[in-house]
Amino acid sequence: MELYSGMMSKLIEEFASLPGIGQKTAQRLAFYIVNQPKEQVKIFADTMIEAREKICYCRECFTMTDREICPICANTRRDHSTIMVVETTRDQAAYEKTGKYEGVYHVLGGAISPMLGVGPGDIRLKELIQRLQGDVKEVIIATNSTLEGETTAMYLGKLIKPSGIKCTRIASGVPVGGDLEYIDEVTLLRALDGRTEL
Amino acid sequence: MELYSGMMSKLIEEFASLPGIGQKTAQRLAFYIVNQPKEQVKIFADTMIEAREKICYCRECFTMTDREICPICANTRRDHSTIMVVETTRDQAAYEKTGKYEGVYHVLGGAISPMLGVGPGDIRLKELIQRLQGDVKEVIIATNSTLEGETTAMYLGKLIKPSGIKCTRIASGVPVGGDLEYIDEVTLLRALDGRTEL
Repeated sequence: MELYSGMMSKLIEEFASLPGIGQKTAQRLAFYIVNQPKEQVKIFADTMIEAREKICYCRECFTMTDREICPICANTRRDHSTIMVVETTRDQAAYEKTGKYEGVYHVLGGAISPMLGVGPGDIRLKELIQRLQGDVKEVIIATNSTLEGETTAMYLGKLIKPSGIKCTRIASGVPVGGDLEYIDEVTLLRALDGRTEL
Repeated sequence: MELYSGMMSKLIEEFASLPGIGQKTAQRLAFYIVNQPKEQVKIFADTMIEAREKICYCRECFTMTDREICPICANTRRDHSTIMVVETTRDQAAYEKTGKYEGVYHVLGGAISPMLGVGPGDIRLKELIQRLQGDVKEVIIATNSTLEGETTAMYLGKLIKPSGIKCTRIASGVPVGGDLEYIDEVTLLRALDGRTEL
């Protein structure tokens, strides 16, 4: 049964194809769009196309950017001898938002996942090892605290160790403001293992 | 602080301007888009523009459609003497989905809301009254069960009564599957008022 006109159904379908957007939300968004001024819709559509055309990977750290070298890598005031390894540009943005990290990044573009068939060759490990040829003092592994992230961290650790470069892993434990009562056992044990002296 | 490249920030902003889409979801969607194949993104963008260009209001019932007369109004097998009045095309679609309603619709394009400054002249009441000149046996008022919907229903009732045409309001009560324990008092009282004999 055709509930909406063809064009409307097509637009709803497009929105529904986005991750985390269900049929109901897609309807709401599609109706919002057709009720917006034409110029507004044109800008949105053009931005989408332009972003897709222009976004590429930084030649240094492989984050998503619209320049050849991203602003962080191009910034000479940042500490280029400290590299934080993250899975995605969004993870990088999360650390950037803290405003406290002064080093540079390396974006792997994923994590090793035997389940999903992602091997070490599918993420930017080779490129990281290449960067270690330069003047690097520390590699901070900030992959996610998931099975895949941990696997990748372990793999990276083994890979970097022979080079003699300091290699650290961000701490895993009870999040700030977290109530022990609601924290899972694995995290609690991790927090215990990682306890530091006061 | 610029977390993402200019183009990326612009795209995130566009997504965040959609209703019900927060900053986090906007980021997720923007990253999804720039990771899609170019042709895919082009289709999405074009659909958006085309839908906005082509969607207009049915000359009869004022639902959103891409034709002059919507398929429901154009369908001669439907009962054109019964008009269901709804607020929006989405409300109409909700009833259409039941597959049981055989009459036609009239889409007001909103509801009277003194709070939002929407008066009787701002929704398609005049057009409804005009349609009543034809061969109409019943007007079913199916505006929402909100303050605005009820106000509009009452206003419509008074407007239509003098014409002598049968004017009904859809029932309001406990939703099917609803547990009395969790239903608000107003609905419970409404259900009591609207009780029918078994």
